[in-house]
Amino acid sequence: MRKVIFPVANSVDNYIATQDGGVDWLLSSDEIESILATMWKSVGAVVMGRNTYEFIVANGMDSYENVENYIFSRTLDPANHPKVEIVSEDPAVFVRELKEKDGGDIWMMGGAALARECFRAGLIDEVHLNIHPILLGSGAPLFLEIEQPIDLELIECKPLPHGCVALTYRVKR
Amino acid sequence: MRKVIFPVANSVDNYIATQDGGVDWLLSSDEIESILATMWKSVGAVVMGRNTYEFIVANGMDSYENVENYIFSRTLDPANHPKVEIVSEDPAVFVRELKEKDGGDIWMMGGAALARECFRAGLIDEVHLNIHPILLGSGAPLFLEIEQPIDLELIECKPLPHGCVALTYRVKR
Repeated sequence: MRKVIFPVANSVDNYIATQDGGVDWLLSSDEIESILATMWKSVGAVVMGRNTYEFIVANGMDSYENVENYIFSRTLDPANHPKVEIVSEDPAVFVRELKEKDGGDIWMMGGAALARECFRAGLIDEVHLNIHPILLGSGAPLFLEIEQPIDLELIECKPLPHGCVALTYRVKR
Repeated sequence: MRKVIFPVANSVDNYIATQDGGVDWLLSSDEIESILATMWKSVGAVVMGRNTYEFIVANGMDSYENVENYIFSRTLDPANHPKVEIVSEDPAVFVRELKEKDGGDIWMMGGAALARECFRAGLIDEVHLNIHPILLGSGAPLFLEIEQPIDLELIECKPLPHGCVALTYRVKR
């Protein structure tokens, strides 16, 4: 079965963007780019909410290349977004079905609300954090409240350039 | 000048206790105990809010031994708490003065509200996280919103037993 991975770059206080969507505090490096490039090789699909999609469009992308792109929205008109598939059905139901199809890993791109739905439904297999050395103070949260604790298993802990830390967790069932 | 250290054990989603104050998800090990014992040798004082103090009292302690204990409260009667010093003045003002006195490191024990006051006042020098492999889902938050981002410098990244990770940050000025 395909794995669902929730990969994020976050601040120490668990924001993924400033209040106005700003991500200019994110740090890159050759090593991070190389890790991401390796990870992308096993990705078969990306799923995201409308806000995340509109954010990447505002930043000049129309889709992630060479993978399936699924955007959850009940309002976007598929005719206007030919490079992606607009999905109007329940995200948890869709992701559950997608996991059972053939293909590479499924990346859940940003979107705390979408992640919460999929955590609740027990669909997320791994959480990949890239913790940046900053307290943003406020912004778009990485996690929303969920009703039940979820146990994780640490798979990897790796310091990265610029004081970033990559933590990889498997969700325990 | 004495350092002010904010040492916490937190979940991946940045809670320090469950909604009802539960901390039975915290993991210990000989290695963690040994690290803590070494850290305690440089501590000269602990400061905490009333809630944190009442939590440790409810757990059978009346103070931390061999260090100064300062409890911020405008309602507790000092006569009833002979093992600690009840401080009714503004915590940021008090901590600023305490930093300039002789003595070991000052540990800020729990209490997101107290930590926020001291972050805002630029008084915290280091943040020591022990990130536990769990999403608690809800509970007592580690961080409250602050108005301005605070840049950190990663000093140490150390995997611990049971999938915990110790991250030590210096607050940049």
